[in-house]
Amino acid sequence: MLPFIRSDLAQFTAYKPHPSSNNAEPVSMQLDRLDTNESPYDLPFNLKEKLAWTYQQVIETNRYPDGGHETLKDAIAEYVNESAALLPSSFTAANISVGNGSDELIRSLLIATCLGGEGAILVANPTFSMYGILAKTLGIPVVGVGRNEENFEIDLKAAQSAIEQTQNPPIRVVFVVHPNSPTANALTAAELAWLRSLSEQILVVIDEAYFEFSQNTLVGELAQHPNWVILRTFSKAFRLAALRVGYCVAHPEAIAILEKIRLPYNLPSFSIIAALVALQNRQTLLESIPQILNERTKLTKALSEYSMLQLTPSNANFIFLRLESNSFHPKDTTVKNLHSQLKQLGTVVREISGGLRITVGTPEENDHTLNRIQAVLANLKS
Amino acid sequence: MLPFIRSDLAQFTAYKPHPSSNNAEPVSMQLDRLDTNESPYDLPFNLKEKLAWTYQQVIETNRYPDGGHETLKDAIAEYVNESAALLPSSFTAANISVGNGSDELIRSLLIATCLGGEGAILVANPTFSMYGILAKTLGIPVVGVGRNEENFEIDLKAAQSAIEQTQNPPIRVVFVVHPNSPTANALTAAELAWLRSLSEQILVVIDEAYFEFSQNTLVGELAQHPNWVILRTFSKAFRLAALRVGYCVAHPEAIAILEKIRLPYNLPSFSIIAALVALQNRQTLLESIPQILNERTKLTKALSEYSMLQLTPSNANFIFLRLESNSFHPKDTTVKNLHSQLKQLGTVVREISGGLRITVGTPEENDHTLNRIQAVLANLKS
Repeated sequence: MLPFIRSDLAQFTAYKPHPSSNNAEPVSMQLDRLDTNESPYDLPFNLKEKLAWTYQQVIETNRYPDGGHETLKDAIAEYVNESAALLPSSFTAANISVGNGSDELIRSLLIATCLGGEGAILVANPTFSMYGILAKTLGIPVVGVGRNEENFEIDLKAAQSAIEQTQNPPIRVVFVVHPNSPTANALTAAELAWLRSLSEQILVVIDEAYFEFSQNTLVGELAQHPNWVILRTFSKAFRLAALRVGYCVAHPEAIAILEKIRLPYNLPSFSIIAALVALQNRQTLLESIPQILNERTKLTKALSEYSMLQLTPSNANFIFLRLESNSFHPKDTTVKNLHSQLKQLGTVVREISGGLRITVGTPEENDHTLNRIQAVLANLKS
Repeated sequence: MLPFIRSDLAQFTAYKPHPSSNNAEPVSMQLDRLDTNESPYDLPFNLKEKLAWTYQQVIETNRYPDGGHETLKDAIAEYVNESAALLPSSFTAANISVGNGSDELIRSLLIATCLGGEGAILVANPTFSMYGILAKTLGIPVVGVGRNEENFEIDLKAAQSAIEQTQNPPIRVVFVVHPNSPTANALTAAELAWLRSLSEQILVVIDEAYFEFSQNTLVGELAQHPNWVILRTFSKAFRLAALRVGYCVAHPEAIAILEKIRLPYNLPSFSIIAALVALQNRQTLLESIPQILNERTKLTKALSEYSMLQLTPSNANFIFLRLESNSFHPKDTTVKNLHSQLKQLGTVVREISGGLRITVGTPEENDHTLNRIQAVLANLKS
């Protein structure tokens, strides 16, 4: 170990980025990639053409990007207001900060609140792993509580007790995803009531990465809760995962701190312009949502026919699937089995938290998913 | 102040990104932008065309980028070996980590070493301000020493004494730029001897952002110094400032830690591919260097004619200019004056550390610079 490296980093395991198809060289595309909750659709060709033209004619590659993001923040504020049917002036650029994916914003929020032994974070597992991973790289303690095994509601009693009993440092940030990943459930009334009851000493981060699929947002409550911040992303419904743009909606004072902490030129010019073009064409891009939701219904319905499969309702563009165990096939083995056999058949899904998280893809991909699951289950039974 | 925010962040001032021309809409371009040490040249049109084509035909906007960067790291390692005339196998991808600009790498290095009260950093002012700014956002103490007023060599006596006497926490990282910004001087033999003498407990970060202009690199010494890391960037000579790609060359163990700390998808697909294309075409891109160095000589020579101006030799693509004060015009006022009058005439330069940092631009821009400085000085004298 190099002696200048923090000793607590030695044991630490990083997030393993999955192999991407966006390599320098085109790769053969036999696999249905249903493991990262991306939209199955690239931007329409006319928009790609427009972006390519803008790169050639407008962007000067040799010049630093716009580090202020004002135009983009204005456009995001307009969309945020629209997304919650708020008055146009409810949120403005002063309520928005933009990051290199939500990841950068999560890190900034952790830096703003918990460093120097000032705070710990609370997460309810299973949930998006980056909160815990980024906290640990910063030496911030992570307190985990569980969820109900049936509907994945947060164990609120354990959560409340963790808040009351965690000391040195106390819990200063609570992270929730709405709807949660990998379990796809939106926050319930009880969970919301608990979040509302939290002291203003505690920052509540509500990650609405999948908002466009759930159509259920809490931005309308931000004004009453200066300790809440909402994260959103262009990586899912807006189809810009390759270009890394996330944003935060919050009280202007919290935004001012995030703006201080972020890297001054955190977004490449091409990403800034792509996010703007995506917002300008949001009607077109979001037209794919009803189809994806229909496909989700189709998948859920068909999979519910199998008594071996446990499904819970999804509010996102993915479903979470567990298996009933039986004495011949312990649950874990069967999940691993299903995962690897699906991959052999050409469908890549995420094995996580004792289940499979399966992204809703194109109708054709979803048909593959169903047929291949059926084939594997038939084998498992025999 | 929001109660969940770290109290030490309240007084903190952020790096102010300069207004960029890379906004969404084309802007009128009357100004010579010589304030950020960018290359004055965009990529040649055939390369922009190639990137635009690659975006349209190869990159899937909806898919996450390649989070492993292997192809890019291989290409960078090849260039690093070549840049120091090392054997092809000296450095490999295991010696390289890639960041969202060097800024992200600087932050990761700070996180890896100094968090949790484990270390402070040492900088010799004036120098690149981001080391101190990023350290302060992380609550890391910054120890500053000065430089020789004539040649800007680090005050090594003060630096050594700071290393010996700083405790709770001790200095764990020393940051130097080679050549330094804003003063343009390369590390001297005495500075190098001092860096070599530092204990292996101390990380030495050598920022070679301007290497392609100085042709003076320390990568050849990395093998003997596992506590040294070298930063480089695609933002200057490689003309990719808009796309934010920096890299670090270091011992594989240090790289492994940086890879753990970085955001898993820190580089957009478009930026990854642009960096690859830039490296593949490095011969073409670096052809502009001799011209820029000639222009630097021309500028330096012409400005040396003015007794009012103090110039020191530059090893980078910019020059640092100070003014002799006289009883009628205190030095500071005159620098501010020169800066604002140049701007009015259409040349934007950086006012910094009691002087002006002026990027070497195109021959036409440099002629403007000379004529405009001459015009302002004539006025000041009268």
